[in-house]
Amino acid sequence: MTREGILLVVSGPSGVGKGTLCAALRKEILDIEYSVSATTRSPRPGEVHGRDYFFYTRAEFESMVKKGELLEWAVVYNQLYGTPKEYVESVLEEGKDIILEIDIQGARQIKQSYPKGVFVFVAPPSLEELHKRLVQRGTDSTEEIQRRLSLAQEELQRALEYDYLVPNEDLEQAVLNLKSILLAERCRVERIKDKITGFSKRRRSSG
Amino acid sequence: MTREGILLVVSGPSGVGKGTLCAALRKEILDIEYSVSATTRSPRPGEVHGRDYFFYTRAEFESMVKKGELLEWAVVYNQLYGTPKEYVESVLEEGKDIILEIDIQGARQIKQSYPKGVFVFVAPPSLEELHKRLVQRGTDSTEEIQRRLSLAQEELQRALEYDYLVPNEDLEQAVLNLKSILLAERCRVERIKDKITGFSKRRRSSG
Repeated sequence: MTREGILLVVSGPSGVGKGTLCAALRKEILDIEYSVSATTRSPRPGEVHGRDYFFYTRAEFESMVKKGELLEWAVVYNQLYGTPKEYVESVLEEGKDIILEIDIQGARQIKQSYPKGVFVFVAPPSLEELHKRLVQRGTDSTEEIQRRLSLAQEELQRALEYDYLVPNEDLEQAVLNLKSILLAERCRVERIKDKITGFSKRRRSSG
Repeated sequence: MTREGILLVVSGPSGVGKGTLCAALRKEILDIEYSVSATTRSPRPGEVHGRDYFFYTRAEFESMVKKGELLEWAVVYNQLYGTPKEYVESVLEEGKDIILEIDIQGARQIKQSYPKGVFVFVAPPSLEELHKRLVQRGTDSTEEIQRRLSLAQEELQRALEYDYLVPNEDLEQAVLNLKSILLAERCRVERIKDKITGFSKRRRSSG
């Protein structure tokens, strides 16, 4: 028996670079699946059902919500977006890992339905760094800088609900950290317990 | 304020390759200290006090034991060996990480005195692999093979007390896993909590 797969939830404030980071991770880690979201919005040219999104009608989507077939869902600009539970669960049961890039509200919902997931908060540069950058840029008023720092500060507090924090100051470093988190989690005794004790039982009963 | 350092305890059955693995890790991770053991045995040619070991008389060593100045200690071939607490603690307080390569009994003692440590069990190749190797080697009787498998099986159960298990089948892979564990632990929210909330308090009180 192999271990159960890892649900790697990558979240953080909007604009922090989650997408770039996840795309870079997938280039480095080949044996990881990617969760495809469901949506009611129309496909854009070139988008493929099942690869970019699962495209559903509003009636179909609402039926999935009612049946509890989504791990989380949200309304964005009057369109519905969500994470189909079945695909994620089937991947995990096969013992494969799956990455889920999602906003903070979505991550919170996922944590309630799947607390065993590994929750990574991608953080913007430190407040010190952000302050420096805003001052250097010179386009914002003191009030605007204060407002932005307050917001960043509040957003950072969200990280306390997560398992890991990866600052996205340097992309290469951030990818290395995210990759390390996945590789380390694969080595966690908690996850391979059955494998350790299973070996033993098998040997004993046959010996 | 920086985070507290990580005590990375690398342990496992004797002969499993802990030393090689730790030496390789230190080449890759430059900002990590190495815990130097204390011993009553005499220095061998070329060994330097404070680098290879802290060399003490039996009276000095026993005095350290009495004063609780060792994180763990043991008797091996009538000589005393132990881990000086002061050096480890001073490194951790400075916010630096420190690696401690130690046998299973020692790791157990460390876990009691410092449960915040990160405990990595270096495992020999899987029992299946070990069985295959012993059979292929063809030098052991069936009974000897069974005895060795039983022993390996029992040793493997020790891993259940650890945080991580790193199989040492392929050195490069094992080093990557060990390195990943350290880098991931550095990102754990639990470890940088004060930093996250500290930022906030500082800003609030000055804002």
